[in-house]
Amino acid sequence: MPDDFTVTPWEVKGKVDYDKLIEQFGTQKLTDDIKQEIARQAGELHVMLRRNVFFSHRDLDLILKEQAEGKGFYAYTGRGPSQAMHIGHLIPFLFTKWLQDKFDLDVYIEITDDEKFLRNQEVDLDQTREWSKENIADIIAVGFSPDKTFIFQDTEYVRNMYPLAVKVAKKITFSEAKATFGLDASSNIGIIFYPALQIVPTMFEKRRCLIPAGIDQDPYWRLQRDMAESLGYFKAAQIHSKFLPPLTGPEGKMSSSVPESAIYLDDDPKTVERKIMKYAFSGGQATVELQRKYGGNPDVDVSFQWLYYYFEEDDQRIMRIEEDYRSGNMLSGELKQILVEKLNDFLEKHRAMREKAMKEINIYKYDGSLASQMWKKVHERGLSYSTTIFLRRVCGSFPPLAISLSSSSFMAMSNSLLANLTWGLSTSSIAATNSGIIRRSCRPFAKTASLFWKS
Amino acid sequence: MPDDFTVTPWEVKGKVDYDKLIEQFGTQKLTDDIKQEIARQAGELHVMLRRNVFFSHRDLDLILKEQAEGKGFYAYTGRGPSQAMHIGHLIPFLFTKWLQDKFDLDVYIEITDDEKFLRNQEVDLDQTREWSKENIADIIAVGFSPDKTFIFQDTEYVRNMYPLAVKVAKKITFSEAKATFGLDASSNIGIIFYPALQIVPTMFEKRRCLIPAGIDQDPYWRLQRDMAESLGYFKAAQIHSKFLPPLTGPEGKMSSSVPESAIYLDDDPKTVERKIMKYAFSGGQATVELQRKYGGNPDVDVSFQWLYYYFEEDDQRIMRIEEDYRSGNMLSGELKQILVEKLNDFLEKHRAMREKAMKEINIYKYDGSLASQMWKKVHERGLSYSTTIFLRRVCGSFPPLAISLSSSSFMAMSNSLLANLTWGLSTSSIAATNSGIIRRSCRPFAKTASLFWKS
Repeated sequence: MPDDFTVTPWEVKGKVDYDKLIEQFGTQKLTDDIKQEIARQAGELHVMLRRNVFFSHRDLDLILKEQAEGKGFYAYTGRGPSQAMHIGHLIPFLFTKWLQDKFDLDVYIEITDDEKFLRNQEVDLDQTREWSKENIADIIAVGFSPDKTFIFQDTEYVRNMYPLAVKVAKKITFSEAKATFGLDASSNIGIIFYPALQIVPTMFEKRRCLIPAGIDQDPYWRLQRDMAESLGYFKAAQIHSKFLPPLTGPEGKMSSSVPESAIYLDDDPKTVERKIMKYAFSGGQATVELQRKYGGNPDVDVSFQWLYYYFEEDDQRIMRIEEDYRSGNMLSGELKQILVEKLNDFLEKHRAMREKAMKEINIYKYDGSLASQMWKKVHERGLSYSTTIFLRRVCGSFPPLAISLSSSSFMAMSNSLLANLTWGLSTSSIAATNSGIIRRSCRPFAKTASLFWKS
Repeated sequence: MPDDFTVTPWEVKGKVDYDKLIEQFGTQKLTDDIKQEIARQAGELHVMLRRNVFFSHRDLDLILKEQAEGKGFYAYTGRGPSQAMHIGHLIPFLFTKWLQDKFDLDVYIEITDDEKFLRNQEVDLDQTREWSKENIADIIAVGFSPDKTFIFQDTEYVRNMYPLAVKVAKKITFSEAKATFGLDASSNIGIIFYPALQIVPTMFEKRRCLIPAGIDQDPYWRLQRDMAESLGYFKAAQIHSKFLPPLTGPEGKMSSSVPESAIYLDDDPKTVERKIMKYAFSGGQATVELQRKYGGNPDVDVSFQWLYYYFEEDDQRIMRIEEDYRSGNMLSGELKQILVEKLNDFLEKHRAMREKAMKEINIYKYDGSLASQMWKKVHERGLSYSTTIFLRRVCGSFPPLAISLSSSSFMAMSNSLLANLTWGLSTSSIAATNSGIIRRSCRPFAKTASLFWKS
């Protein structure tokens, strides 16, 4: 019997059998053992872990082991900017923010304004940049740390990624990209190159990166895992979520092209109520009488699923709601009303955070501690451990992050690279990294360092 | 009868029939009328124009017309870095330098370190960067103006080119790239994207660009000409040279993989003499007696061809050499000796210039007048004429070059873009373009300008 569902990076169709998907994709089930270890290290389990919304992984056990050994890890996720974000888009960000809080993580968020532009004939680059700004505000509103989070747009940060991107690109043929990303001969040459820029952030630090994302994104990372070690980096670990079901029914995933399938972050309270009442697929019976007699089915009821996935965090309450609904004590309308209240409460808080976030975009993109360090790095190759030690010794305060530097051609990459070197020498010089004076004053130091570079 | 020669960007085979090639490629013949107009504007004709080494073009007539009208033009050429450059590699640079002198041109020279790395499995990125440095010294040694020439490596300057590169890339499908650049499904996704970065420099200024290059490169520019106007730029004009024949015979072109086919720029006088005497294909007779009786054939004699193409600039002398050789007055050995002397003279001067050039690389790449302006630009879209006028009025000294700016998202591209804007406000602020202070102080101005941006 053929599967009655499809999951690819560009399509989710049918009622997904997640156990089967683990088998198909060859990922690992998120076991109770792993969850216990997360709880031990984090002090608690996020609601989406308790409820199996995150249900599958690759190398999460390694992440936890390396964390326990003091090596640490970092998190990477991203967003293809769109006109409006819906509730489903927030899932990986909500979870990543929790990870950041519990593990004190550096978090990198890639805004793929290039991909969005390249993939959609009718979209222009100015549009994707406008959307990026709006989406970034929604992402910041989730509550990420301003000094441990770097949000970057490809069309800007490519300057620091390209040398490593060509190394990644050289290891991916058109045939491979075609199979993995659903391309063909009529695809444009920009979208064909783009996967290289999606892979580079998995190599931003010289330790393992964890990617929280929908399981449909897994194929993207298989290519990364095939090549990462040959470039001197780590295979990316992943933790995979299920799809928050669309309002319209338990199949597929929410889609911006079907507005009634989703709640948008800017939907006002009335709109939320109307959409839930009108569209939220119900597992209840046709009449009040039948509902009282036979009860509803929470397993297919989208309102219940949304409460279960995230919006009712209290385990006792969600169990009671489930029992009441299944037994017929609770009517569909009552269940929907609970969701409406939870959603409107969430969205009200979100919008307040978002208003503040609009003023903080530059902190996350350019000026925060992690962001400003990242703008001074050119990604190309991880230095050896001994070189890192040398740099720390010479520079004193050399940031632990600045360990991906070009190996040769000091003057070639001079602006950004020497800015990196000046970091440890004089923080005030950073502001003037474009100046020839600073560049020249760094040369003697660059020469010394380059000896170690070569080793 | 099938053609007995092949000319593609990746292969030149057989004895090229250049008239047929003009027909095949659909280019224009470089007529006497056009040459007269060049002579009128330039005051003279370069030896490679007089001798028909440059023999074909696209829109060179438009270039001359626009120049006469005061609109001007600029020149763009490039180099895929290699371990050692040979005499043949210098042809477009020697001619471009002459153009710069005569027309006071801005000249852009792209060093494709990314392409070289992506196209050759055995080459690593550090190598192509080392070669870039060496090749750049050879190019500077030709005598380009330090303040009107910008030499840039793709892996560095991509930061300023990517937004326009994705716009270019979106207009080229894999099928088109495949046909034009000899790619297939096993090609890596980096080399597939690369043509976009080769096209962007044809859009560096808001006037027409002239590309002096071997005619084998023409297919690259056909794609450019198909899309340029839709992006608000000019179709690139070209002037095409024949191939300086390899030492080993009048067919094909010089190849680095056949060392005896070429004279390298670092060949010492003894090596040059040995190579010419041993390998230079002769149009002479088998013995002195036969040569005296029947004379030689300068049309296939490589030594004569090299003298004719460039190394004997004196028209009277080259005519005399041709007559003497054809009549049998001059022996092959004598002809070769003339070339040896000319070459060694040329190479000696070149090496002296090169030694000086090694110390000037940063001027051409970063610090010269044109170079430093270019590092402050992000290429994306040409502004309308009225916007340019507005900017000049506001900024006073706004450089005529800085007319390719992003239209929206001021803060998005803040660093580079606002650097552009500050140019006219305060030259001293340029050194500190990365600083938040400057960025913030520019906001009021950015806001005003953005209104015009939108128009």
